[in-house]
Amino acid sequence: MTGTASEDKLHEECGVFGIYAQEGAEAAKDIYHGLTALQHRGQESAGISVSDTQGPKGNAMTRKGMGLVSEVFSSSDIEALKGNIAVGHVRYSTTGGSIPENAQPITMNYIKGMISLVYNGNLVNTKALKEKQMYRGQAHFTTSDSEVIAYEIISARIGSDSIENAVLAAAKNLKGGYALIVMSPRKLVALRDPFGIKPLIMGRRDNAYIIASESAAIEAVGGEIVRDIEPGEMVTFGTDGIKSDRSLCGSKHAHCAFEYIYFARADSRIDGVEVRDARIEAGRLLAAEDKVEADIVVGVPDSGLLAAEGYAGASGIPFAIGFHKNSYIGRSFIKPSDSERQTAVHMKLSVLKSVVNGKRIVLIDDSIVRGTTMRQIIEMLRNAGAKEVHVRISSPPFLYPCYYGTDVPTAKQLIASEHSTEEVCGRIGADSLAYLRVEDLSVMAGGLSLCKACFDNVYPIDVSEGR
Amino acid sequence: MTGTASEDKLHEECGVFGIYAQEGAEAAKDIYHGLTALQHRGQESAGISVSDTQGPKGNAMTRKGMGLVSEVFSSSDIEALKGNIAVGHVRYSTTGGSIPENAQPITMNYIKGMISLVYNGNLVNTKALKEKQMYRGQAHFTTSDSEVIAYEIISARIGSDSIENAVLAAAKNLKGGYALIVMSPRKLVALRDPFGIKPLIMGRRDNAYIIASESAAIEAVGGEIVRDIEPGEMVTFGTDGIKSDRSLCGSKHAHCAFEYIYFARADSRIDGVEVRDARIEAGRLLAAEDKVEADIVVGVPDSGLLAAEGYAGASGIPFAIGFHKNSYIGRSFIKPSDSERQTAVHMKLSVLKSVVNGKRIVLIDDSIVRGTTMRQIIEMLRNAGAKEVHVRISSPPFLYPCYYGTDVPTAKQLIASEHSTEEVCGRIGADSLAYLRVEDLSVMAGGLSLCKACFDNVYPIDVSEGR
Amino acid sequence: MTGTASEDKLHEECGVFGIYAQEGAEAAKDIYHGLTALQHRGQESAGISVSDTQGPKGNAMTRKGMGLVSEVFSSSDIEALKGNIAVGHVRYSTTGGSIPENAQPITMNYIKGMISLVYNGNLVNTKALKEKQMYRGQAHFTTSDSEVIAYEIISARIGSDSIENAVLAAAKNLKGGYALIVMSPRKLVALRDPFGIKPLIMGRRDNAYIIASESAAIEAVGGEIVRDIEPGEMVTFGTDGIKSDRSLCGSKHAHCAFEYIYFARADSRIDGVEVRDARIEAGRLLAAEDKVEADIVVGVPDSGLLAAEGYAGASGIPFAIGFHKNSYIGRSFIKPSDSERQTAVHMKLSVLKSVVNGKRIVLIDDSIVRGTTMRQIIEMLRNAGAKEVHVRISSPPFLYPCYYGTDVPTAKQLIASEHSTEEVCGRIGADSLAYLRVEDLSVMAGGLSLCKACFDNVYPIDVSEGR
Amino acid sequence: MTGTASEDKLHEECGVFGIYAQEGAEAAKDIYHGLTALQHRGQESAGISVSDTQGPKGNAMTRKGMGLVSEVFSSSDIEALKGNIAVGHVRYSTTGGSIPENAQPITMNYIKGMISLVYNGNLVNTKALKEKQMYRGQAHFTTSDSEVIAYEIISARIGSDSIENAVLAAAKNLKGGYALIVMSPRKLVALRDPFGIKPLIMGRRDNAYIIASESAAIEAVGGEIVRDIEPGEMVTFGTDGIKSDRSLCGSKHAHCAFEYIYFARADSRIDGVEVRDARIEAGRLLAAEDKVEADIVVGVPDSGLLAAEGYAGASGIPFAIGFHKNSYIGRSFIKPSDSERQTAVHMKLSVLKSVVNGKRIVLIDDSIVRGTTMRQIIEMLRNAGAKEVHVRISSPPFLYPCYYGTDVPTAKQLIASEHSTEEVCGRIGADSLAYLRVEDLSVMAGGLSLCKACFDNVYPIDVSEGR
Repeated sequence: MTGTASEDKLHEECGVFGIYAQEGAEAAKDIYHGLTALQHRGQESAGISVSDTQGPKGNAMTRKGMGLVSEVFSSSDIEALKGNIAVGHVRYSTTGGSIPENAQPITMNYIKGMISLVYNGNLVNTKALKEKQMYRGQAHFTTSDSEVIAYEIISARIGSDSIENAVLAAAKNLKGGYALIVMSPRKLVALRDPFGIKPLIMGRRDNAYIIASESAAIEAVGGEIVRDIEPGEMVTFGTDGIKSDRSLCGSKHAHCAFEYIYFARADSRIDGVEVRDARIEAGRLLAAEDKVEADIVVGVPDSGLLAAEGYAGASGIPFAIGFHKNSYIGRSFIKPSDSERQTAVHMKLSVLKSVVNGKRIVLIDDSIVRGTTMRQIIEMLRNAGAKEVHVRISSPPFLYPCYYGTDVPTAKQLIASEHSTEEVCGRIGADSLAYLRVEDLSVMAGGLSLCKACFDNVYPIDVSEGR
Repeated sequence: MTGTASEDKLHEECGVFGIYAQEGAEAAKDIYHGLTALQHRGQESAGISVSDTQGPKGNAMTRKGMGLVSEVFSSSDIEALKGNIAVGHVRYSTTGGSIPENAQPITMNYIKGMISLVYNGNLVNTKALKEKQMYRGQAHFTTSDSEVIAYEIISARIGSDSIENAVLAAAKNLKGGYALIVMSPRKLVALRDPFGIKPLIMGRRDNAYIIASESAAIEAVGGEIVRDIEPGEMVTFGTDGIKSDRSLCGSKHAHCAFEYIYFARADSRIDGVEVRDARIEAGRLLAAEDKVEADIVVGVPDSGLLAAEGYAGASGIPFAIGFHKNSYIGRSFIKPSDSERQTAVHMKLSVLKSVVNGKRIVLIDDSIVRGTTMRQIIEMLRNAGAKEVHVRISSPPFLYPCYYGTDVPTAKQLIASEHSTEEVCGRIGADSLAYLRVEDLSVMAGGLSLCKACFDNVYPIDVSEGR
Repeated sequence: MTGTASEDKLHEECGVFGIYAQEGAEAAKDIYHGLTALQHRGQESAGISVSDTQGPKGNAMTRKGMGLVSEVFSSSDIEALKGNIAVGHVRYSTTGGSIPENAQPITMNYIKGMISLVYNGNLVNTKALKEKQMYRGQAHFTTSDSEVIAYEIISARIGSDSIENAVLAAAKNLKGGYALIVMSPRKLVALRDPFGIKPLIMGRRDNAYIIASESAAIEAVGGEIVRDIEPGEMVTFGTDGIKSDRSLCGSKHAHCAFEYIYFARADSRIDGVEVRDARIEAGRLLAAEDKVEADIVVGVPDSGLLAAEGYAGASGIPFAIGFHKNSYIGRSFIKPSDSERQTAVHMKLSVLKSVVNGKRIVLIDDSIVRGTTMRQIIEMLRNAGAKEVHVRISSPPFLYPCYYGTDVPTAKQLIASEHSTEEVCGRIGADSLAYLRVEDLSVMAGGLSLCKACFDNVYPIDVSEGR
Repeated sequence: MTGTASEDKLHEECGVFGIYAQEGAEAAKDIYHGLTALQHRGQESAGISVSDTQGPKGNAMTRKGMGLVSEVFSSSDIEALKGNIAVGHVRYSTTGGSIPENAQPITMNYIKGMISLVYNGNLVNTKALKEKQMYRGQAHFTTSDSEVIAYEIISARIGSDSIENAVLAAAKNLKGGYALIVMSPRKLVALRDPFGIKPLIMGRRDNAYIIASESAAIEAVGGEIVRDIEPGEMVTFGTDGIKSDRSLCGSKHAHCAFEYIYFARADSRIDGVEVRDARIEAGRLLAAEDKVEADIVVGVPDSGLLAAEGYAGASGIPFAIGFHKNSYIGRSFIKPSDSERQTAVHMKLSVLKSVVNGKRIVLIDDSIVRGTTMRQIIEMLRNAGAKEVHVRISSPPFLYPCYYGTDVPTAKQLIASEHSTEEVCGRIGADSLAYLRVEDLSVMAGGLSLCKACFDNVYPIDVSEGR
């Protein structure tokens, strides 16, 4: 159940997209399509900055606004954004604290012209950096990390001989998980945190270079994948070609497990692993030691479908499409007053009755956060005649907060944090409940070294400075 | 591939929803949710009219606008629409001729107060009716049938003793396929054409009666299904309960086959047949005599998925999810310039590469209209490594126009009308191509008597008056 | 004190403007400027209809909206309105009953193509006409007279051989004061009521004919005045030139006195009399028998200034500008909460202190409606040090309602209707108060025969059918 | 001819308004009305910042937008701006370089909470200040001086013990003419440049203190005038009352002469002189040595009317109102294509024909900039039958640029800079032309020491740093 109206889900914070094209190219149009391909990573706001590398140094233009990419930008907006290099951003919709000022790109005019920055992630030392900046007389207009990073860069730039060296100097002060693209009047600089928590990948189309949060976005604009940006690597695109700096690279990696479980598009490949394959594998791993007897395997659309396919294949129990999903429930949808008989979940999902009537069902979803949605889904299945509902979750129980950019409810709201698996099973009304084992996560992701902090409380980066 | 950005699909023209609730109820909110559940039937415009049966007779309020239900109505709009009976409408987005004036409901103030009318369908004798009306001095402000029907009703009302008798008198002049709900200051009147071409169903929630194009919309607002309105039946809801008039009912029915194939929601039940079951059955029928050897069965999302599941079940070839669909490609999306490498289809659909690489694929879709989309999809599969692509279509070749309310390209644009199946197979680049047989349509729909005119040129209602 | 924020004034209901230009001309632009020149006659809504006399017969386009002309129409709107003949309308802003549907032009498609109609005035037999129309099956979408008139015309057109004959036939059914312009696909027809209550004048610019409520609007678009349309005259503009029909003309005229006193622009000439001259004359007539001793004559801007100039000239007491007027108090201005020290009147008008301090003042205004504004103005003058304030009003006491199109408060709200002149003088806090005599009105207007019903209760047209 | 559509005028850049009220007061509403009273000083953008002195220190809210005060703010906007202290700003509409970012107030979050700043004027050392700031790492988001001043203040605040001391320290770096109001979370600080070029005045209403560009705005919100802020004086409003700092005050003053001639409202009193009196006096001074024989004195509305009254009084030639002015020609008005017979000037001004026909006219206006408007006005008078037109201008010839905040065309566009008075007279088509003498300016303004740089090239502050 991807999407905007569901509040019982974890949320990624952002998607970034950048392009360095030849003189005369219209970069904004590609950013528009790239951001549309990344829209699942954030629906709150969208923004694009362009620069014409042949124009004067302060010629960057930025346009951003609240809403979907297609709501923020009209054809004429895109045409007005003239320039051959560009960066863009989509931001996730929080329930309350969303303010227009926090939309990205963050563009600053400074002593060397301008920088425009897009960023996905979270720093754990924002507070200390911000205080230091304020003592320099740097005013803050947003509550976002991206502004803090931009100030680090422009301050570093005063003593640096190039924008990439300023980014590198600033990066030494940044603690957290992030993927970053910085546009200067003439260059694009991409940077990924040393643990590789957030994804960032490079592509190419003819003479243009493309940077994006996910490979699917590069392919959506007709590009070919070159390779992932390495954890800690900084890549600079300029008139003299591409330069890579690996001085921040380390040996310890910790890729976010939730990209494979839920965040990323199924058709993306992140750090060498196809997301679709990971989800199929999660289903297989769930089935591997499962002894439940059932008639059909049903996935909660859209994110539970692939794990359901994997489970069905491994278990031999037939796969069936069990739900209709209404794809018109967007941000501005007015929710029903949540009577017993009509809720936002009922509006969004409905059961195909003849499928489930009289059946024993294995129900696959990617995660349980508060448990309220799952409880309603199971009730709908029972109302439609399901005899048994065995819930299988393609991730381990979610127990700890994320400090690197994923929006997580407080521990009290996390049902798995407050209750045993047996209790959760009872509360959601299932006949049985099982999760993917923490030790299976790496198997799922083809052996990659993952950040599993939200499941096992082991944080790759010290988070004691908190937020 | 449901939805707004695809232009290579047939389109339903509308969805209707009405509610007759007890005094003091807030009918508009239910209409809002009912229309949201019917949004797949039309995304061009949405509208709601309400009446307070305790208020003065001219107290109806109508609000309508271009766009999705959630775009047209804000919370405060819905709150402002006070009344316990209401009708609502969603209208399909045509490419050019869409004008705000044609949005429904059509509300008219006349000698007995007002009527507000919502309508799905098409008349074949509009021109003659309109001319007759103009000679009466009735001005026309729209180019829609609904205005013509409304004038027939208010003219008939002058000599009738009740709104329902006026609707009945007017109905005798209407030739075509239609589902109609008329709201007077105190009553709701629902009417379905004598052949039952367009669907219309009745539900109930406590003391409120609900009328809708599809059962799923009644359930979305927490209602229970009572029964389909019979072909030719008129049902009147008023303070003295429900009255049914069957004087227009006949013995010959012709339900639109495309509701089962593509238009309706999979979770709806129309004239006693579950749409999901019909689609599964279409897949089974396709498999029944198919001898193709393949590794996987893949459906084109969303409408090809169920037929693919049915085909897989009957053939024993494994079902696999083969595509990622981007659900953020809405009406206002700016399309790419359609280079070879990036098209609107590429933005909307992408292949899960590891699924199809090296495989022989049975590809299921519900229809081929122009063939352009299918050609691109097959090309994407081949680029991802598919060895063979065998296309199976869960409907017969589309050959003739529809005069009853479905938007169809001209014959020249219908690939099946201009080319043999073998030629079509070559043009779309498939290894083989097969369609559902016309004689299997009734089997698919549980033996119902269907309108198959677009496949076999046999029109249930004389269309010589044309349009 | 012209304008939108003042509620203590009478209000004209509308201004009309039409143009019949040569093929290829862009009539909409002239209408835009003509309506801007008539904006003082109505600020609630504005609208334009155009027709291309070379195009197909149904090619008229209408655009209208709430607000000022410059708010309703953008450059691109005006460019999109292609056509060489056109009509336009501005409508006055009532406090509550203003609904978008009532905006003009009213455009109807009917058996002979279309008509588009603009209208200033009021009928006294609307109710009877409307009922008759409803029995014909003609639906009503507005609460305006203009729709009623349009239906009369299209019904008459069925039995008439030309649009002008249909207008003439319809006109025989209309009772009231009105100025009307009807556009058919190929012609423009202008009509003025037989008493000439409402003004309507004809002009010319090269080969184009212009019709407008006031001469100033014709001159604003560079036209020259030809002559007033006569009371009861119908003028038709078509490919074969101008035709005049005087069959409805009578000998008894009754031009609205308030056009001279307050409604019309000072630079307009209506029925042969310059509005500026009438206002100067009103001031002179007030001075003629006045024996008050004073130091300066001050007019309430803008409409009291000319009468003040006339009074000063006749009396020998020096004229002085005594107020600053804030011209930025528009329709959307948020009023203060009306404490003693800050009111909407204080925001709009302020006293030039050094002018009035220690002075005996003759204060001239055009009318007193409720008296509240005048009371505040006098208080401001006293606070600024005025020794005496002698109020002189350039119209007689306003006592009776207008049935021909002027918006008048109920008798209870008319201070002169409820109180003697002496009492009014006390209530507004003046030292003395005098009005223009009813018998001086004709003198003021150069001997014209005026409608003075609001002053003397003598109505030229029977109003017993009321409204 | 005040106002937005005239391009042949000098323009003031801004108006400022601030209020320091008791706890619980709704300051935003007063700012709204105060800004409306200052709207003549700028129509491009409007903005308001509020702070609740009882709330947390970062609780300021700012709202600003393009357009008039009444366009930018709705009732609900004003209600949402909760706080008892506030500042507001109106900005003048330039033809091209107007960007939303430059709207004021400028609000910055910094180490001590926030400041919000409104400002009228211009600095001559912006460039040097900005470069210094950029080397501190302070990014710039606008092209306005106000941002530069705000950075000076927050940088100074780091080493200061109070906001007022920071403002004072920053002020020492500012060169130019300015009136400034700074809001901190708890205080309001008002500052005027040492020469008093820009006006700033203090008022009071009960316990609330008010600061504004003009006295009329204080009175519009029901306040009483306390006194002008002295040139160079800084006044601080806080919980412990008012404090004045005069350490920047000097003995040399140079009040902008154009405030009296044209910018300010006639009902304002600036530095002890009533603007109305100055304008009357300018007319008298023009008449003093004039020997022209004429029949009437006519002023160009609105700004020429008072000088005309003064001229008439001194010369004995009768004053007459000679023009109708259309007050609906706003910012969004679509201009005519400027044929000979219809121009923007014709739309805005028209002649009262019977006044001028056959007359010898003294025509008074406040200034001639390019001369194009005056030429058209004289042509209109002649077309209406004027026999002679003698132009008298109530200011000296405009010859030099202003560096302190008035928008002036380039010297080439200044007709007086390129041509002798005799030539100008010929070009505008007048029978004679005379200006106010430079030496009469101080007489006009009651002996005040004025900045007359635009007339005599003597700049009170060194402008060599230029811009």
